This record gives sequence, structure tokens and C-alpha cells, in this order.
Amino acid sequence: MSVVDLFEPDGIAVIGASKTPGKLGNDAMSNVEAYDTEICPVNPSSSGSVFGYEFVDSVHETDADLALCCVPAQLQPDVLEECGEAGVGAAVIFAGGFAEAGAKGHELQNRTEKIAEKYDISVLGPNTAGYAIPHLDLYGSFVPRIRDVQTGSVGVVTQSAGVGITLSFQLVREGYGVSAMFGLGNRMNTTFADLIPVLDDDPRTDSIVLHVEGTEDIDNLLSVSQAADTPIAAFKVGEHDIADFARAHTAAPAQENARYEDGFNHRGLVTVSSTTELIDAGRVLADSPRPDGPNVGVVTAQAGPGIIITDYLKGTKATFPELMSETRERLDDLLPGITYTENPVDTGRPMPAFGEVVDVVARDENIDIVLVYEIYEDSLGYPVNELGALSEEVEKPILFTVAGPDHALEDERRQMEKRGIPTFDTPERGAQAVAALIDSISGD
Amino acid sequence: MSVVDLFEPDGIAVIGASKTPGKLGNDAMSNVEAYDTEICPVNPSSSGSVFGYEFVDSVHETDADLALCCVPAQLQPDVLEECGEAGVGAAVIFAGGFAEAGAKGHELQNRTEKIAEKYDISVLGPNTAGYAIPHLDLYGSFVPRIRDVQTGSVGVVTQSAGVGITLSFQLVREGYGVSAMFGLGNRMNTTFADLIPVLDDDPRTDSIVLHVEGTEDIDNLLSVSQAADTPIAAFKVGEHDIADFARAHTAAPAQENARYEDGFNHRGLVTVSSTTELIDAGRVLADSPRPDGPNVGVVTAQAGPGIIITDYLKGTKATFPELMSETRERLDDLLPGITYTENPVDTGRPMPAFGEVVDVVARDENIDIVLVYEIYEDSLGYPVNELGALSEEVEKPILFTVAGPDHALEDERRQMEKRGIPTFDTPERGAQAVAALIDSISGD
Repeated sequence: MSVVDLFEPDGIAVIGASKTPGKLGNDAMSNVEAYDTEICPVNPSSSGSVFGYEFVDSVHETDADLALCCVPAQLQPDVLEECGEAGVGAAVIFAGGFAEAGAKGHELQNRTEKIAEKYDISVLGPNTAGYAIPHLDLYGSFVPRIRDVQTGSVGVVTQSAGVGITLSFQLVREGYGVSAMFGLGNRMNTTFADLIPVLDDDPRTDSIVLHVEGTEDIDNLLSVSQAADTPIAAFKVGEHDIADFARAHTAAPAQENARYEDGFNHRGLVTVSSTTELIDAGRVLADSPRPDGPNVGVVTAQAGPGIIITDYLKGTKATFPELMSETRERLDDLLPGITYTENPVDTGRPMPAFGEVVDVVARDENIDIVLVYEIYEDSLGYPVNELGALSEEVEKPILFTVAGPDHALEDERRQMEKRGIPTFDTPERGAQAVAALIDSISGD
Repeated sequence: MSVVDLFEPDGIAVIGASKTPGKLGNDAMSNVEAYDTEICPVNPSSSGSVFGYEFVDSVHETDADLALCCVPAQLQPDVLEECGEAGVGAAVIFAGGFAEAGAKGHELQNRTEKIAEKYDISVLGPNTAGYAIPHLDLYGSFVPRIRDVQTGSVGVVTQSAGVGITLSFQLVREGYGVSAMFGLGNRMNTTFADLIPVLDDDPRTDSIVLHVEGTEDIDNLLSVSQAADTPIAAFKVGEHDIADFARAHTAAPAQENARYEDGFNHRGLVTVSSTTELIDAGRVLADSPRPDGPNVGVVTAQAGPGIIITDYLKGTKATFPELMSETRERLDDLLPGITYTENPVDTGRPMPAFGEVVDVVARDENIDIVLVYEIYEDSLGYPVNELGALSEEVEKPILFTVAGPDHALEDERRQMEKRGIPTFDTPERGAQAVAALIDSISGD
């Protein structure tokens, strides 16, 4: 058994496909038809075609590697049996009503799992909204408009597909994308530990983000995460007692968060505590070099937000070293006497020399990471070229926190990102991204 | 002395006005010319006009109530003396180099303050980017594009004008506005305690948000806040030791956060710990009724984000009561057996009856606040009309957390807000807004 048929299916059967808009079997067809392969809608009660594909009565009439199962839970064992007989290698089971739904559901999941085992079928789900691999135009999901999700360099694996969808659409909203997004649901036989190594090997995936509610394969999850070369950020939900609700969701066992946090206290691994932090950690881990240490230099054009950033980072593993004396001399030349040239460096206002100030701080040997804050002004713009050149010359993370009128700064923001300067749009998000970078070099 | 000339100036002098784009005295002119009054650019070294207004040599030649002072710090005492002689009632001093800049700056500020006292001039600043009252088109600031800031119902008073600008532009980005925004800077004689009562009396201001680094008038700040009828949220920066940098910024004295937190542990007052939380607290306090208690009912169409929300709220003063038995019966009728009909109520997927589910929970007598989470689907849309009608009938806060493709959900999101349902765009933001509401009814 391998998950490869989820990634490169030759032929896809949509079992329970439907002509009726709004039905799950119609939504799944509308998404999967973007992928360049033979698509076979399977439904013995339908005839004619849907999205231009002819209905067939049975999966036996197809040559599909992958089945998207749009049928109710109780039909699933029979459907999977047929899939096995027809040589299907991977299946997505969307329906709920399995292990998350009491004893009867548990029994149904066990029965289905045995069939998957017998035929060596990789099952994503049950109880999932599916997955997306935008660079292949492969959207194995019933979620409307999931095809809006663009290609990016962050791989997303979530226990709750709802969280995976939420993260993906937030990335879209902010102008980013995913290398792949998998909602695991009940993890019948496709788990975190199966997907992390595949994403780790994927050259399009530069970081992996995980959403975990609680999973039986915690030891495997921790060991494959620790073994991965790709940096990983994880949001383990369940700081408080939510076991009852979580079990009713994806059949998550109640587990101590401490066990995850211990396991993630490892070089290359990061833990966060919100969806926005998870996205930002994924982006900064994908787009920045690893820092050599926790020494942060803050350069700000406005003291107030700089103080918010500094205050936040003082509650993390970040340190604020003194700048070298030659750095301070150069800053004194660049800046009028009234501003603050310690670390943080405060230029008082945006100014033509702002890029040069960042450059001087970034080249200081005491500094491992530079975090910049500047409210945009049209007459000055952002120092895109200076920082672009700097990021090519200096192997240190340089992060830029933007503020101001969005439509004015958007272009230059995207240009900075193309040149290796990740950007963030509140003081806290910039500071949290720095904390994630430092977390990624901490631990065993 | 009164701050009224900041709010309704009849005649504005821009001292140090300039024809040169990018200069502070030009930027200030470009902003203030939107206001319907006589605008007088004052500069003895300039002739002709700027933005259609003729230069005059001295403030004596004007009949201005308000002076925007765009001159360097060392010229300020003389300039303010002239303003006083000319009958100016309020002045904004943009320049830095006063109390935040060591002993000499302190002396300069004291000297300037005595002149303000002698002539009874309300001074905003020094060391500020100014203020904005969008509904009057009054932008007393040099910040480019500050005229993008729209009218809203949240009043913003920040110690750092940079933070005020940051908050204002974040509100713009997200489709909201301010009733007024004041950056205090060094608080020469216009402090939190002067502005809060004015905003409290302003019928356009439904909530007030404060950014505090540390201020001499802490007792007054706390007492006027406690006396205000308008709900107030405050972000007190300085959880960690940043005293040195903060003093160099707005001459903020180092103060225990505990003192603020004690003072804000009062009905109607809320403390938060990030700029985004501050904005969201302002919005929800402005747009929702006060809840009767801390009993939250969560309704979610996707369990995973619902679990994130619940986990977050379990770390706050929120409680999750059992639903009444009749509520549970009605939910059992509306929802298939596989979903979770305790509190949180999980519908498993968006569904036509989703609005009805929210309605049933909102009418439960055990519930004081309803928080909803739903990923948008085109074929269903959001239950705008049902929730709009509900919010008119039920005097409880109903908050809606949105997710999905932005361009699809934007319209309905704005419609919900018009009908009294504040919306938020990540699970955490929705949960934090609920926490702010509960915080606002807690304390003495």
C-alpha cells in the first residue's frame, strides 16, 4: 500500500457522482474535472453525462487508480470492496458516521478498514473534505471553489479537513498558496506519518504545517517529523478539556499537549497556537534561511509598533544583542541624533536612508535575524531593491512588517517577497514569525 | 483650556507649510485642505500658494482656531508664543526632540508647555503624527493617505501615533473606519483623560480603544475610563522590560502592567494584548449589545474550527452551559443523528437549516452570547436574513466567523454586519471577540 495514487492518479472514479448542483457527488465532479486524466462518474441510477463525462454503472467499468467516494457511510464497505476488485489503489471517503459516531460507527469503520487492507487501498478519511494539489490541478474534494486555492510552497496536513480548508482559503485571501493540502479526518490508514515523508521528499514543498487534535500514531508522527529535512510547524489543539467534542469530531483520543510539545522541542520543528500563526510559520520557514541563532535586530520607522514587537519577542526565546560599535557609528551617521540607535533601531520616520539602515543592522555580526517595521509612504516607497540585494548577499532571515494603505503598498510587498523577504501585516504577526524561526533552531 | 478647537476648528493655520512634495509641511497641507474652513499656510520664506491657498508670513495674519505646527522642535516655543498672541486655541506639534530626547529635550518641552499654559492652548503632541476625524473630513496629520481612513464607530486614542496610524489602516484594509483617531505622543497637556470624556459624549463613538505605553496621568486615565458610559478596550504594552526604549519614544514612565489591569478590571472595560485584538474588541463592543452573562453557545458547520474556538474560550472567563432540553429536541429534529448537538453544536456541513440552528441556540435561555463558524458555500450562502431578523428580536450578541473564498462571501458578510452581526475572519479572532465581550461585563 502506498499513498502514491493520491498524488498521481491515472484515471479517477467519482462514485455517487450526481447531476444535481449542490449534491456532494456533483461538487466533487466539478472540482476533479480540472485534472488531466480520464474521469469516470459512477452511478447506476444516473445516465447521460455530467461535466461532459459519461456515467457508468460500476467502478468495474473504469480503469481508475483513485476513487472519490460520495456515498453514505453504510454503503461504503460494499463500494470499497468493488473498488478493490476493480484495482483502485487509493480512495477518498468523504462520509461521516464512522469511528467518530459511537460504537456502530466504530464497527463500520473497522469493517471498511479490513477491506482496504485486503485490497491494499490507501484511504484518505473517512469523514474528510478531501485534498488539493494545486500545481497538478488535482482537487479531490467536494468543497466548492477549492479550485481557487493556488500553488505555493507550504504543505498542509490537517486532522480536520475544515481546518485545512480554512487555512487554504486564508492563504488565498492573503495572496499565497499551498504545495498540497490534505484533510485527514478519521485517519483510517492514511495518517500524518504517511504524508509527512512524501511532502518532505517533494521539491515543491519548502515547509509543512500540521493541525493536530489527537491521533493514535503520535509516536510515528513525532518520529517522522523529527526525521524530516523540511521544517515543520504544528498547531496542537486541546490546551483545555475539549476531549468530548474532539472525539465526536475525528475520533481523536484525548492526549496531553505536553507530549507533543516535548516531541516538537527538536531542531526544525515549531509549535504554534493559532491558525494565523500556523500559516505565518509555514511561510517564514519556507521562505527564509535558518537563522544561526536567536539574536534579533529590530529596525523600525515608527517606535510604537517597534515597542509592541520588542515586548512580544521578549516573551520568547529571542535575544536582543548590543550592536557592534562600528554598526552604531554607521547608524549615528545615517540617523539624526534624536532617534534611538540601540537595538531596536528607530529611525523616527520613514526616510530615504531606511534601506541603508536595515542593511547596516543586517550585516552586524551580532545579529542573526532582522525584523523591519515601516508604515508605507508613497513618496519613499519600500526599499525593495536594497533589501532584495541584501537578502542575496547576507544569509540571514530578513522579515518585513508592513502597514499603511493596502492598495499603495501591495506591489512592493509582493516584489519583496519574490526577492526573499517574507512580509507580515501586523506587528504581532511579524514578531510571531521571528519567534517561529528561533523555535525552529531550538531543541534537541 | 479645552480640546474643542481640535474637534471643530474655525480656521486652520499650517505653520511651516511647504510647496515641496514629501516635506512634512506639504503633507500636512495635502491632508488638512479636505476640511471645510479657511486654511492658511504660514511660511515667511514662501510666496504664492499651495493647494490653492495663499501663503501668509505669520499666524498673526490668520484668524485660526487650530495651528498645525510643522517646524523643528527648537523653533516651537517662539511659534507657540505667536500662536497664543494670535488667539489660537489648539495646536498640533508634530516635531520630536522634546521630553523623549534627554535633558535638553525635557527643558524644551517644559518651556513650550509654559507658553501653552499662559495662552490656554490645547496641544496635541509634541512628537505625534496627529489626528483624524473622518466624518468631518478633518485630517490634522502629515501622514500620507490618511484621508483613506473612513468613518466608523470606534474612537481610537493611542500613545504612539504610529500605532494609531497602524490601527487605522488595518481598519481600512478590513472595511471599517474610526469615529476619530488621536495619536497623543508626549502628552504635553492633552492626555488620555482629556480625550476619553469627549469621545464618551460623542454620539458617533460607540466604543473607544486605547494604546498605552505608560503615562503620568494613570490615575486620571483609570478614573475617566471607569466613569465612561462607552465601552473601552485597552492594549497596555510592556509586559516585559522595554522601559528604556519606551522612554526614548514618548517619554513613557515605566509602570507595572498590573496597575492597569486592576484598574481595567471594571464593568465596561476590557484589556487585550495585540493590535488585532484591540481592533476586534473595539468593533464588537461598538456593534453588539452587552451580554447578560458569560454563557457561550457555539454553532459551527465544521467541527475542527469549532474545536479551536472552544479550546481558546475555555482559557477565558467564558462558560459553556448545557442547552435546555427543548433546544436539544429542536436541534435533534433539525440535524442528522451523526452530528454533535451538545454545546458546541456541530452541523457537520453547511446546510439549508443552518440559520435555523443558530436561531434555536440563540433563543435558549441558558445562552448569553452566540458565536457561529461557517465556511462559505455559494449554493447555500450565509443565513443573512434569518440572522438579521434574529438579531433584531433577541437582545444578545451574535458573532459570525467567516471562512472561504473572500470575493464570494464579501457581500453577505457586509450585509450581516449592517444587521448587527459582527463578523471575524479566523477562528481565533471570533473567539477573542467573544472573550472581550465577556471581559466587558466582568469586574467591579
